[in-house]
Amino acid sequence: MPDPGGLFGGVFGRGGADVSDTAWLQAMLDTEAALARALERAGLAAPGVGAAVTAAARADHFDLDDLGRQAALTGNPVPALVRALHALLPPEASAAVHRGATSQDIIDTAMMLLARAATRTTLTSLRRGADTAAGLAERHQDTIMIGRTLLQQAVPVTFGLVAAGWLTSLDEAWAALAMTRRDRLTVQFGGAAGTLASLGAAGPRVATLLAAELDLPGSELPWHTSRLRLIYLAGALAGASAATGKIARDVTLLAQSEIGEVREGAAPSAAAAGAAAAGAAAAGGGTRRGGSSAMPHKHNPVASIAILGCTKQVPGLVATMIAAAEQEHQRAAGAWHAEWQPLSALLQLTASAASWCEDLLAGLDVDPAAMRANLDAAGGLPMSEHVTALLAAKLGGPAAHDLVADAAASGQPFRDALAQATGALTAEEIDAALDPAGYLGAAGEFTRRALAAHRRAHPG
Amino acid sequence: MPDPGGLFGGVFGRGGADVSDTAWLQAMLDTEAALARALERAGLAAPGVGAAVTAAARADHFDLDDLGRQAALTGNPVPALVRALHALLPPEASAAVHRGATSQDIIDTAMMLLARAATRTTLTSLRRGADTAAGLAERHQDTIMIGRTLLQQAVPVTFGLVAAGWLTSLDEAWAALAMTRRDRLTVQFGGAAGTLASLGAAGPRVATLLAAELDLPGSELPWHTSRLRLIYLAGALAGASAATGKIARDVTLLAQSEIGEVREGAAPSAAAAGAAAAGAAAAGGGTRRGGSSAMPHKHNPVASIAILGCTKQVPGLVATMIAAAEQEHQRAAGAWHAEWQPLSALLQLTASAASWCEDLLAGLDVDPAAMRANLDAAGGLPMSEHVTALLAAKLGGPAAHDLVADAAASGQPFRDALAQATGALTAEEIDAALDPAGYLGAAGEFTRRALAAHRRAHPG
Amino acid sequence: MPDPGGLFGGVFGRGGADVSDTAWLQAMLDTEAALARALERAGLAAPGVGAAVTAAARADHFDLDDLGRQAALTGNPVPALVRALHALLPPEASAAVHRGATSQDIIDTAMMLLARAATRTTLTSLRRGADTAAGLAERHQDTIMIGRTLLQQAVPVTFGLVAAGWLTSLDEAWAALAMTRRDRLTVQFGGAAGTLASLGAAGPRVATLLAAELDLPGSELPWHTSRLRLIYLAGALAGASAATGKIARDVTLLAQSEIGEVREGAAPSAAAAGAAAAGAAAAGGGTRRGGSSAMPHKHNPVASIAILGCTKQVPGLVATMIAAAEQEHQRAAGAWHAEWQPLSALLQLTASAASWCEDLLAGLDVDPAAMRANLDAAGGLPMSEHVTALLAAKLGGPAAHDLVADAAASGQPFRDALAQATGALTAEEIDAALDPAGYLGAAGEFTRRALAAHRRAHPG
Amino acid sequence: MPDPGGLFGGVFGRGGADVSDTAWLQAMLDTEAALARALERAGLAAPGVGAAVTAAARADHFDLDDLGRQAALTGNPVPALVRALHALLPPEASAAVHRGATSQDIIDTAMMLLARAATRTTLTSLRRGADTAAGLAERHQDTIMIGRTLLQQAVPVTFGLVAAGWLTSLDEAWAALAMTRRDRLTVQFGGAAGTLASLGAAGPRVATLLAAELDLPGSELPWHTSRLRLIYLAGALAGASAATGKIARDVTLLAQSEIGEVREGAAPSAAAAGAAAAGAAAAGGGTRRGGSSAMPHKHNPVASIAILGCTKQVPGLVATMIAAAEQEHQRAAGAWHAEWQPLSALLQLTASAASWCEDLLAGLDVDPAAMRANLDAAGGLPMSEHVTALLAAKLGGPAAHDLVADAAASGQPFRDALAQATGALTAEEIDAALDPAGYLGAAGEFTRRALAAHRRAHPG
Repeated sequence: MPDPGGLFGGVFGRGGADVSDTAWLQAMLDTEAALARALERAGLAAPGVGAAVTAAARADHFDLDDLGRQAALTGNPVPALVRALHALLPPEASAAVHRGATSQDIIDTAMMLLARAATRTTLTSLRRGADTAAGLAERHQDTIMIGRTLLQQAVPVTFGLVAAGWLTSLDEAWAALAMTRRDRLTVQFGGAAGTLASLGAAGPRVATLLAAELDLPGSELPWHTSRLRLIYLAGALAGASAATGKIARDVTLLAQSEIGEVREGAAPSAAAAGAAAAGAAAAGGGTRRGGSSAMPHKHNPVASIAILGCTKQVPGLVATMIAAAEQEHQRAAGAWHAEWQPLSALLQLTASAASWCEDLLAGLDVDPAAMRANLDAAGGLPMSEHVTALLAAKLGGPAAHDLVADAAASGQPFRDALAQATGALTAEEIDAALDPAGYLGAAGEFTRRALAAHRRAHPG
Repeated sequence: MPDPGGLFGGVFGRGGADVSDTAWLQAMLDTEAALARALERAGLAAPGVGAAVTAAARADHFDLDDLGRQAALTGNPVPALVRALHALLPPEASAAVHRGATSQDIIDTAMMLLARAATRTTLTSLRRGADTAAGLAERHQDTIMIGRTLLQQAVPVTFGLVAAGWLTSLDEAWAALAMTRRDRLTVQFGGAAGTLASLGAAGPRVATLLAAELDLPGSELPWHTSRLRLIYLAGALAGASAATGKIARDVTLLAQSEIGEVREGAAPSAAAAGAAAAGAAAAGGGTRRGGSSAMPHKHNPVASIAILGCTKQVPGLVATMIAAAEQEHQRAAGAWHAEWQPLSALLQLTASAASWCEDLLAGLDVDPAAMRANLDAAGGLPMSEHVTALLAAKLGGPAAHDLVADAAASGQPFRDALAQATGALTAEEIDAALDPAGYLGAAGEFTRRALAAHRRAHPG
Repeated sequence: MPDPGGLFGGVFGRGGADVSDTAWLQAMLDTEAALARALERAGLAAPGVGAAVTAAARADHFDLDDLGRQAALTGNPVPALVRALHALLPPEASAAVHRGATSQDIIDTAMMLLARAATRTTLTSLRRGADTAAGLAERHQDTIMIGRTLLQQAVPVTFGLVAAGWLTSLDEAWAALAMTRRDRLTVQFGGAAGTLASLGAAGPRVATLLAAELDLPGSELPWHTSRLRLIYLAGALAGASAATGKIARDVTLLAQSEIGEVREGAAPSAAAAGAAAAGAAAAGGGTRRGGSSAMPHKHNPVASIAILGCTKQVPGLVATMIAAAEQEHQRAAGAWHAEWQPLSALLQLTASAASWCEDLLAGLDVDPAAMRANLDAAGGLPMSEHVTALLAAKLGGPAAHDLVADAAASGQPFRDALAQATGALTAEEIDAALDPAGYLGAAGEFTRRALAAHRRAHPG
Repeated sequence: MPDPGGLFGGVFGRGGADVSDTAWLQAMLDTEAALARALERAGLAAPGVGAAVTAAARADHFDLDDLGRQAALTGNPVPALVRALHALLPPEASAAVHRGATSQDIIDTAMMLLARAATRTTLTSLRRGADTAAGLAERHQDTIMIGRTLLQQAVPVTFGLVAAGWLTSLDEAWAALAMTRRDRLTVQFGGAAGTLASLGAAGPRVATLLAAELDLPGSELPWHTSRLRLIYLAGALAGASAATGKIARDVTLLAQSEIGEVREGAAPSAAAAGAAAAGAAAAGGGTRRGGSSAMPHKHNPVASIAILGCTKQVPGLVATMIAAAEQEHQRAAGAWHAEWQPLSALLQLTASAASWCEDLLAGLDVDPAAMRANLDAAGGLPMSEHVTALLAAKLGGPAAHDLVADAAASGQPFRDALAQATGALTAEEIDAALDPAGYLGAAGEFTRRALAAHRRAHPG
């Protein structure tokens, strides 16, 4: 996993999705090199040209900042890159460079290559996170806790069911992203206006060979101004982001000082530990994850915070990608350019959130005793739905609802208030009604379903 | 197709997607009625209860504004609706109403029913639009026009290829939305906190029967706080919106007074004609589509404008849906509520854009002569890539590029400037190089591929 | 305060901001009527024409749905409206209707009128909310509670300071919205392309009179394609939304079952009570705000939830308004149309959030005992910063930080662990260091500043 | 103007707004240094401590990537930065570092410093752009061109009026951003939870001194979870972005090959020329701005494209900033972190768009002859409103409208068709009615107003 680098890389750049300028440059060069090889295979470039261009097409042969400056002359860095590539090559190879292509072909295809690489790491994190969530769901099938709706205690659930919900979302996100990655990341190759005219009759064949060289699917037509695949990619990334954001939100809430039902592990995962150890050593030691600069007793849920710091940036970026799909004629004046940075950010933030989520789940401390204590402290009130249902069978729904609501609001212990308010239930019936273990409904069944679906999706 | 009604309904509410308050209310009632029938089938309600609730569950039995007022007491209209439904029923049926359910079950499932109905009309419009685009692509395979990149004339294309690009996007949008509609619109039924505890062991069976009654797929688990399916739905709607927005953007540009290559039909489609005729008659006649209140000579591309008026609202709404997916515990405090209006708007705007697009394509006047005239007026400059390529074979790429650029900038007719600048090409070779029909590359092949793919997708 | 109506009006339409179709229609008619009066004052229409048009220009004279249908012919409802208005008037008055104007003049100016009315109610709610927050800040200057950062207990604050923070935001939001309302809601009047050519030399004078008739500021130039004022309006609304959203988020968290430091009042405000009583009576009684359909013991923070349900829709809508500002030439093809619905929604949601917030603050139950209990339950840990500072003066910062962190993590009572770990502080010094009342810093000063600023802003 | 660097810096990073990681780091260090000086001035640190910390607080003393790695332990880079700063200082100075502060104080204040610096360059560009637009407006007061609504020719305007509209927006954007910069960029200093408790009674005085040291305004209260100022800043940046985006959109349209009324200057501005020359020299020369890699005749409107590439990213980023304002308690878990990257991007993109716009306007070639030719080619149709008005006085409005519409649609020259259709106007009257110079209304007056307002705002 490459080190993301940068002042905020540890937070937003985790997970190894490389969308740095160097990665962009290399992806463009990979596209140019693959095109040269495709031209050679199509008989449109001399033997050896493909290899020569491929050898030259290494990012470290180029001055990235200089290409960026020259991009100001054309609106994108490809023309300068092509000139620089020419300068590195003998005439015969130079003549084949970029043949048939337009700048957009190179940038769009490079974008697909970046997306393919970045989503690989995201998928791995999602799957590992799902595996861990499955373990939590399995282990905690009988761990009873209070369910909370609208941030109020509601009725009992199990932590296994909570983890099963996380698991299902991670699996759904994985599946949608994997399908999108497989089907939507196609080569763009259309030349100046989508006809590949400068290649004469050979255009489609070169396009096919280019796709083969890059191991990307081809597309029926060039998609230079048909940006739906980018919208679907953004949507799949948003799904992955949402799956992790939900988990992080739950963990921040369950880890509140007053609730304490879960706690993020203080020890970072193996992957993070290396970087952390290096850093801590350099700093003189003593830094623990989740520590606070000002309050040494604090144990902040850093992974969850980092996830939310990533995921909250996603909706706006997706909106930009969708708005940018309104592209004029055969190449858009601005809308195309507006995609590069948001898509990079989406790839990186989603990978980072997924990586943090994998780590979060792997280190999560679950405290069944705290769950039980919070439930018991509610004095039976979370069973009020159960009691209401039992009473409704005898008194009718509205009367039962009001009776239970009055008992809940009486200020007395709920059990006693119920006993006083009605003779419709015996003390034993009230006690049974107030036992949370007897009011879990399909929690177990739903948990088992989630586990089974996970095993079907990932039989490994 | 229901009349959307309202002051802006003709623009934003076209296409028959009904997300009105009445439609919402009826969808909630349909869910309650289906639940009663499911309970009866599961043996949890007496025979006849399902029919009784179903008979009562008609929107016109309820005072919608009053339910809305009472929604202020609970944050959603379901509790008041349930009480009102109770009041319409005999005790036995009343007791079964809403049994096992929580407000979110009713609203989420109603949202799925609305989405199913709204996307039906959108899919129909997309498909009809695609059929028409296919006809345009086929008819105009040999209609040469100038391709434009960055709003500048570039190289020749055919209008057939342009239409093929529209077609491919419409087909992709159709397929993605159809798949989403089939797979993602599932029943939500989980009770107070997702365990269905109030139904005891019968919960999962009632959930299955409820899905069957509504003819919706079930889901493995309740998805009350796992909102990925809404993100994917929003993404599929955004794809449909983008496909139509691209077409509308192209039409507004091609229909500019100075370009005039296409023109929206003045006669609205049959569907629109009814409404228009009624309106025009009432107003004293004379109103034509595209007319201006102040400038009688104008012919505004109203359909395209209406499409863009719809599609430009989509990115922000999708962002809201994605952001809302961060939902707390077993029911979100606000994020859930924030979904209802944006999803309604997305469904309606996408349906309206698709319906306008169907109409736009059906009435589109294409003017091949204008296309040819604009191309000829460019005096061969759009062939400069072609000339450059021919010269490059003789002079090398950079020299050829510069020579052609100088000729293009000379102020002289391009043909003459080329002839003067170089002896590398004969006059005949220059003439051949400047013939756009000889520089269409794979335009025909790509158009045929788009048509073949369309026929595979919609063999009808 | 008009009843918003509709199934979701009680949640999203509270506060009296009327952006209904009828309100839109009336605002357009008010603009047409004011224009007729302005023309009469400018000598361009006969005496009496202004009054005649004004008398005719009542929304109930028009068939709103029919206008909407005809809007499909032109992309907006104004041309049909003008024809319908003509039909109601004698020829002399008819001739003056809409003179000099284009559709956009009418719609843009109507939008300003709607914004002026809607922001009036929002400002009133914000100010009343601020007044109530000021009362809370004043009353609770000495109410100690635990401050929470990253959802973990941190150091003590006062509830007065929390309320002062709410107050300051409400006051800032009020001031920004009031300034925007005063300065940015200007008449749009430019005719077909912004020159008012059809009025000859009289254009600017009619524009000035029109502004006077509507009591709106004029603008130096027509702003038909300069949409900055709408962006600033959207920004000011977003500020108001954010001020209320922060309060609502805090209340949902402080009202959690396990924390219980505040609680929304069960009794709705007077304004809401009327609607609720009517509804409750119709429904057979018994409905209380915050009750749950399934769990009678619950007391949901409905006002906070409704606020968040509104405010979470705001960012996407603002994004749409900003994106729509890219408008072509002298009238945009779609971007202009895309503003109408999002601005309506922004006005309504912000008014609703502000109204809910006013109500929330007025009914908020604050529980100082619960605050104290939660603080005490932390066993002195929130004082660790204080202890660290005292120790740092003797041991140096890093050593003090680590010592306190170890004591906090020891599992022992913090006081005892500290005493054992170091002799640098006496038992008395430790006790003093652990008293939260001694560690409130500038909480009082900041609270007094907020109150003073509020009194300066609203001396009433 | 610093070189933005990076592969896309020439497009998106122009204008000198530095939001690089190094700039962030230096801004944090500047805040820490100012705090040390403030503490010294308050008597809370020994003489010389301020100077010592200031000397140490240089970004090049720190390993930025290492700080970023350690940020993964705490969720932000400040704790590691503070430790690293400690390590560079003697004990006495070390003890004062970060005293009273929390990480958020440092990051939020650093963000204000970055915003102050970035908006300085943006304001300069906006003002220079406005000056140039004023020159265009003045020079072209009598340059007649066709106005276009809904992308159709409408009625005549002047290019002076078009430029005046651009000018007014630039001036409005300047004023709003300048006011926001002056009033909203305030120090954040509140300590662990906003009470500054660790500074005892000295907190408010240190806060005041810190503001003085940084030459930033103070704020009444810490604003750690009151983010309205960031929303207003984002809104002001969005206004600046919108002003430039409108201009760029107009230029791309006016510069279309078929319209050719304006053209971006081929010669980049002096500022850009340096970078370009360096780049072109390195590449072997020959690169001109606006050239195409594949089509040497093209002259792409690169500045406009770059502007739109920037501005189209803005709406989504603003949405993120607004959504992030919902912050919990005394420090948000994620929402705060989600602000850093979007605000950086907003600052940079807005500065880049403004710089490009300054350059675009300075080099804009305006072609009055092309404007006249396009107008003449319309054969008088754009005067139809004028003719209609003259006829309406004789025939009544609807009859006049229909007569002119029929003449416009007749296929005959408009002048002849009008003469045939009616005797209500003489040939001379028709000729006069069709002269665009006679139908410019208040174009001149509005242009003069815009110029006068500009001189009032910028009397320099």
